[in-house]
Amino acid sequence: MRLAELSARSGVSTATIKYYLREGLLHPGRRVTATQAEYDEEHLRRLRLVRALIQVGRIPVNSAREVLAALQDEDLDRNGRLGTAVWALPHGPAPDETDPATEAARRTADELLTRLDWRYGAPPAPAYGMLVTAIAALSRLGYPCAVDDLEPYARAMERIAFTDLDLVERYGTPEEQVEAAVALTVLYEPVLLSLRRLAEAEESRRRFGGR
Amino acid sequence: MRLAELSARSGVSTATIKYYLREGLLHPGRRVTATQAEYDEEHLRRLRLVRALIQVGRIPVNSAREVLAALQDEDLDRNGRLGTAVWALPHGPAPDETDPATEAARRTADELLTRLDWRYGAPPAPAYGMLVTAIAALSRLGYPCAVDDLEPYARAMERIAFTDLDLVERYGTPEEQVEAAVALTVLYEPVLLSLRRLAEAEESRRRFGGR
Repeated sequence: MRLAELSARSGVSTATIKYYLREGLLHPGRRVTATQAEYDEEHLRRLRLVRALIQVGRIPVNSAREVLAALQDEDLDRNGRLGTAVWALPHGPAPDETDPATEAARRTADELLTRLDWRYGAPPAPAYGMLVTAIAALSRLGYPCAVDDLEPYARAMERIAFTDLDLVERYGTPEEQVEAAVALTVLYEPVLLSLRRLAEAEESRRRFGGR
Repeated sequence: MRLAELSARSGVSTATIKYYLREGLLHPGRRVTATQAEYDEEHLRRLRLVRALIQVGRIPVNSAREVLAALQDEDLDRNGRLGTAVWALPHGPAPDETDPATEAARRTADELLTRLDWRYGAPPAPAYGMLVTAIAALSRLGYPCAVDDLEPYARAMERIAFTDLDLVERYGTPEEQVEAAVALTVLYEPVLLSLRRLAEAEESRRRFGGR
């Protein structure tokens, strides 16, 4: 298809598609004349992912480019590509190593991961850093953040991850699966956080009564 | 205690405390001389919450002020204050009413809430708007977002909310409980999101093998 059709089918303006092409977020189409290129279903799918990352997830262009590079890394298997792509997503501020709460938070995180028998969250994973930062903030402010406090949250997230991967496995090819995994990780975050707030309101009503 | 001690015990600089006082995020101390005021444990607790909202949650000062106002609204019971305070938290972009995907997303959200028998998430709740926006984004990009897809996430969030409220009930007074509920809602969000990413990595390793 030509640029105009790619724009119509994706709902992304031609100007934005050209910007994504210039920024390397979308691979070039197949040149057919000096001024025209041909695009295919893979471009359409990739454009969908780019919109998920940039327009919905508000992920910076540089990070999005890293995510997409990981998805295409031929040296990695499906699990490796998925891990590398999710690692390239923004993870908020890294742990503050000058803060004494960080060291204690790291011990809590390690004990939690050991108890869960999660072996993939070893220290280099940015999500591990994000967890340590979050535990340190809780502890600095004096809110509950012991391993026993955190464990029920982790168990719930195990079930969520199982559901996430079930959605991913609906896609046919390994390429589509890793793309879907990254998109669903980002797009389901506001689903989870809004459902949590609604569930809290519901549980508060049950416990504390209400109007 | 004097300002210097409040600063030392909270870890918040006197300049920042003065800024919070000026912005109405912290109620004034009891004047003892023309230039000095006396602060108490309630100031310390409030300061902790303000830091959770502003420094960790990166919530704008105006929204934080609304959250704090709701916490102190004597016309509301505990459930009402909690709900109003959480409603005042930022919830991301409101649903785009010009987008046809929004209407379909609203029907999906309504059917989900009916199935869950959550009665508190009625349309005016901002978390409901956040959910509709998130479902519309999924649907516009062609990712799974049927009621059956969303239900397992909602069930997991029911368990999370139960755990949240258990943490809240550890606090002695209704005032402390609503403060803790708001702080924990905000501070546990990065805990949940990082644990989900770690759990996904773990589940991906189990299903797709890997190094």
